[in-house]
Amino acid sequence: MMHPIIFNTTLEEALNLVGTFAFAESGALLAVRKNYDLVGMAVLALITAIGGGVIRDVIIGAIPPAAFTDASYLWIPLFAVGLTFFAHPLLNRLNAAVLVFDAAGLAVFCISGATKALIYGLGPLPAITLGTLTAVGGGIMRDILAHDQPAILRVGSELYALPAALGATIIVILARFPGNDSLMVGLTAVFVFLLRLFALRYHWKGPRPWRTTSH
Amino acid sequence: MMHPIIFNTTLEEALNLVGTFAFAESGALLAVRKNYDLVGMAVLALITAIGGGVIRDVIIGAIPPAAFTDASYLWIPLFAVGLTFFAHPLLNRLNAAVLVFDAAGLAVFCISGATKALIYGLGPLPAITLGTLTAVGGGIMRDILAHDQPAILRVGSELYALPAALGATIIVILARFPGNDSLMVGLTAVFVFLLRLFALRYHWKGPRPWRTTSH
Amino acid sequence: MMHPIIFNTTLEEALNLVGTFAFAESGALLAVRKNYDLVGMAVLALITAIGGGVIRDVIIGAIPPAAFTDASYLWIPLFAVGLTFFAHPLLNRLNAAVLVFDAAGLAVFCISGATKALIYGLGPLPAITLGTLTAVGGGIMRDILAHDQPAILRVGSELYALPAALGATIIVILARFPGNDSLMVGLTAVFVFLLRLFALRYHWKGPRPWRTTSH
Repeated sequence: MMHPIIFNTTLEEALNLVGTFAFAESGALLAVRKNYDLVGMAVLALITAIGGGVIRDVIIGAIPPAAFTDASYLWIPLFAVGLTFFAHPLLNRLNAAVLVFDAAGLAVFCISGATKALIYGLGPLPAITLGTLTAVGGGIMRDILAHDQPAILRVGSELYALPAALGATIIVILARFPGNDSLMVGLTAVFVFLLRLFALRYHWKGPRPWRTTSH
Repeated sequence: MMHPIIFNTTLEEALNLVGTFAFAESGALLAVRKNYDLVGMAVLALITAIGGGVIRDVIIGAIPPAAFTDASYLWIPLFAVGLTFFAHPLLNRLNAAVLVFDAAGLAVFCISGATKALIYGLGPLPAITLGTLTAVGGGIMRDILAHDQPAILRVGSELYALPAALGATIIVILARFPGNDSLMVGLTAVFVFLLRLFALRYHWKGPRPWRTTSH
Repeated sequence: MMHPIIFNTTLEEALNLVGTFAFAESGALLAVRKNYDLVGMAVLALITAIGGGVIRDVIIGAIPPAAFTDASYLWIPLFAVGLTFFAHPLLNRLNAAVLVFDAAGLAVFCISGATKALIYGLGPLPAITLGTLTAVGGGIMRDILAHDQPAILRVGSELYALPAALGATIIVILARFPGNDSLMVGLTAVFVFLLRLFALRYHWKGPRPWRTTSH
């Protein structure tokens, strides 16, 4: 029997909203770079912000998904679209800020995804898989819709899915032990967040299969 | 408490079948243009015709989705494939007719999608989102499978998702008031249908984010 | 009322594991060819191996999907990734073996997909559709994530979805008659398997819509 993790729900809620906004911004700004119109901006912002969580909820049977019961998951992306529509030249210059927000979203969503999967009775490896999917699923769907190669697969991209998978793994381990969960969960989020930022700063990349020939 | 919309179910059923056929045709004809074989035609026709509705039903918990309980949602696309297999040179010349059918499908599906979401207890904004998704989801999946940029995002494309979103919004507003719903719903469908056709005719496009620099 | 098919569950389980491994290998090897890192290999291996089954389970309401309750559906792809990471030059030379494994997976998954759909009460045509989708869905998602045109749609590709659809159809017909099901199901699997291999060997392709003009 898994030990239920006690989140600081106020903090978790706040971080979830930050993550939703950051993911929506990454979708809206990609739409601007692709020269899409307002509708295209809304499509990409919404799919990036809620895509991962909707897939997780459909798989674990949390129906309707949180994105369709808590209206802030839809309003925040629409607000991000409105903001980007007028302020995108400024936001593009704030590209670094978007990456920081996005790292926060990654950290929050891998944790809330794994936690929710455990609450719905999934085993450790499925919970890790779903936590990672919650964090990276929206971005994958954003890139597929925009007809780009998914960023997390792109050759030469910095670690993205790996920090999320590590964060989800830590949460699954923590859930086996009683203790000061709120603190440990917070530290896990900070760890994922910093790991992603360090990966960006120092260009840390995933290991590549060993090659015997050039090509 | 939402007021249940009273559809003219015979009319709704008839329009749903027209929309399914039109969407299937757009998939089958794209497969022909891409030089796919019969299997590829069936894949694109089915995904275009039932894709949006299946996603909606999975999200609201209408399991199994209507496309897998009412066999006409599968037979009609297969019929469209058979027809296209032999008559595609004719159908290609009827491109304008396909666009008119497609506009009918768009009008019907945004309404039936929003209505079904309301019936399953979703709030206004989620119902509008799902109504729009029902109308445009199949076409997006068609384009992704065919390795094209999704038509609704393409630069310079005429309004498509916006009429659907407006139609779903009107339905959500109507659902708050008792009255002659059947007539109002019919008028909404006509409005979406005509708005899409006018957009095609006069090349109405979505607003684009304000640019300060050329590029 | 449908007659429940009596599988040899040991055999079915063994074939399912072979199919899962084969599909995972096809994903991992594609990732190597695309020069992805370890994370990209895991993403493609997992999506190919479990993608089709997860969509089937979500549609029929088998929640959580088998891939998230039976851990071997996740461990086998991860094992395939580890193997490929070190041994991919060897595995690439074993390309023919991968195609044979993949044909086994195709045969198993179209049968188990159609059977599960029948058990969950779906009608004949929906069960055939879902059986086919179970067999080809993972490969389609693999190709979309890798930013390739889906292999089953590619011009000039050998029969792939058609053997799966035939296998699912035979299963649906068998389910209407009592009898030595285990033998018949086994023969169906062999039929699909051989049909796919013969199609590869003799370049059997799907029928193409009749053309009146060159282009």
